[in-house]
Amino acid sequence: MLIKEIGEFNLIKRLSSKLMPPARKVLAGIGDDAAALPSPKDKLQVVTTDMLVEDVHFRTSTAKPFEIGWKSLAANISDIAAMGGEPTYAFVSIGFTSHTTVEFADELYAGMKKIADMYSVDIVGGDTVSAPQIIINIALLGEVEQENLILRSGAKADDVILVTGDLGGADAGLAILEHNLALEDTKKHLMPIPRVSEGRLLAKSGYVTSMIDISDGLASEVNHICDMSGTGALIFMEKIPLSHNVFEVSQKTGKKPYDFALYGGEDYELLFTCHPDKASDLIEEMSIKLGTPLTIIGRITNAPGSLIMDKNGDIFPLQARGYDHFKQV
Amino acid sequence: MLIKEIGEFNLIKRLSSKLMPPARKVLAGIGDDAAALPSPKDKLQVVTTDMLVEDVHFRTSTAKPFEIGWKSLAANISDIAAMGGEPTYAFVSIGFTSHTTVEFADELYAGMKKIADMYSVDIVGGDTVSAPQIIINIALLGEVEQENLILRSGAKADDVILVTGDLGGADAGLAILEHNLALEDTKKHLMPIPRVSEGRLLAKSGYVTSMIDISDGLASEVNHICDMSGTGALIFMEKIPLSHNVFEVSQKTGKKPYDFALYGGEDYELLFTCHPDKASDLIEEMSIKLGTPLTIIGRITNAPGSLIMDKNGDIFPLQARGYDHFKQV
Repeated sequence: MLIKEIGEFNLIKRLSSKLMPPARKVLAGIGDDAAALPSPKDKLQVVTTDMLVEDVHFRTSTAKPFEIGWKSLAANISDIAAMGGEPTYAFVSIGFTSHTTVEFADELYAGMKKIADMYSVDIVGGDTVSAPQIIINIALLGEVEQENLILRSGAKADDVILVTGDLGGADAGLAILEHNLALEDTKKHLMPIPRVSEGRLLAKSGYVTSMIDISDGLASEVNHICDMSGTGALIFMEKIPLSHNVFEVSQKTGKKPYDFALYGGEDYELLFTCHPDKASDLIEEMSIKLGTPLTIIGRITNAPGSLIMDKNGDIFPLQARGYDHFKQV
Repeated sequence: MLIKEIGEFNLIKRLSSKLMPPARKVLAGIGDDAAALPSPKDKLQVVTTDMLVEDVHFRTSTAKPFEIGWKSLAANISDIAAMGGEPTYAFVSIGFTSHTTVEFADELYAGMKKIADMYSVDIVGGDTVSAPQIIINIALLGEVEQENLILRSGAKADDVILVTGDLGGADAGLAILEHNLALEDTKKHLMPIPRVSEGRLLAKSGYVTSMIDISDGLASEVNHICDMSGTGALIFMEKIPLSHNVFEVSQKTGKKPYDFALYGGEDYELLFTCHPDKASDLIEEMSIKLGTPLTIIGRITNAPGSLIMDKNGDIFPLQARGYDHFKQV
């Protein structure tokens, strides 16, 4: 059934009726002019927002509506994780087209609700409009103790650079779908797992000097840390932990394995820096408590500009070649 | 110059460089993964979000980019006003097309910044993406003391129903533009003035039992109050204060004057209810302190369903015929 057959108010009723009751206190939610929520007590609020447009950020031909819903909230949760925070309340604006079915909307919401539930996020507001293509905008609130807030700007010369998990898997997954490769490992592209617990552990450790989530490729994110911290960086290419699917996809497409990690987007791992003496403690604690691998991939330097060293010891500028939404259209 | 010629990062730099320094403390803003903000102390946070799509919600042929920017933030500020709150921080996601010029983006932002400044709103985050048409999503945070929070749901039988200012002017302004009428009064449509001070005065009075902003036409909003409060309403048509431009536009288009107020959207006045004994005090206080007229337009009733009485004393059901984004496409 098409959304335009049931109309806007029935759509809102239908979607909001499927939401879990909020885990937190909500004084007003969907159905009033605005949501009214308790403020985080003795904490900072952290807020992020992302807009996703059909055929720019996702395709309904390669991603199921459940996966699109999941990923759109995952991307925002990852931003909160990168501040050392915990997500709390989400506001979801969606543009549906005259061809969008109620079933599509249901599944999109189901994906969002699934990950919202996993991360204790309450969806308490939003907007639904008509549009020429599907548009999703999520604004996500979170909270963090002031002493645990980690910015992009705190890296210092001689700090080591680490990443959680492995990289390149999302971009390799995208290549599998775009080139219709006979491979199956597309999970990291379609349903990324934001690193909230990892971000909290790192923030609470007191050892982390800067942090960012990897949404636009490692090269781009290293440059963001350097720009905001006024430092340089040297990355050791061979140290970058690559996802398993990168090698197979590299073989089939001819794209170099490390390029998936360096320039491919949406891995949603955390990139962070800490004093060199503290790295081994962090690696051990993370492994014991959460089972998540941390890998040292480089060093912060004094000289501005970020560099990468390959296996031969040759050093090149590490240029940000992350996705530019305007240049590539 | 086209946005795609300068690229995403230069666009973000350009737009954010033109923002005023935030009036409030911001621990992280544009340039980090998320904004980090102090929480409202001993207050609730109120949050609203709206998505506007080119050719659905606005046309670049009839509205200047400055006006589009102004209005998109005005609509959200009005939602915060309707809760009795004050707006604080805005997050602006914008989709620009491959044809959008940097000058258009500058003007859009200038309009947003103008009203943001007027209402002490800090724009501290957002997202810019590429899209097939211009899309604007604003998420707006605000704050309100718990005792001053006014919901849609508190109306009681025998309460009187009041509105701020005058109605129909926005819809009449839209008609002037759409029918290319030789009339000039389009201000209320293009650059609405949200009623924050009025909302604060009403909330602090302690007399107001329910409140909503008029974004979808009076009929629709009266029904929302009744639905949420479990009441009915009787509106006296002749009491509805009409905007000046309604009469001229009515003459030229043949549309009945009261239809502009009842079914036309975007007046962004406040509709509220209070105990009948308190109405005259409120009207006087509002007039003295802010010079804004308040008008009693009806009564809350016990019987479910809202009604309207015309000048002959005939009573009809007051049907919501506000804009349905999906039905009309």
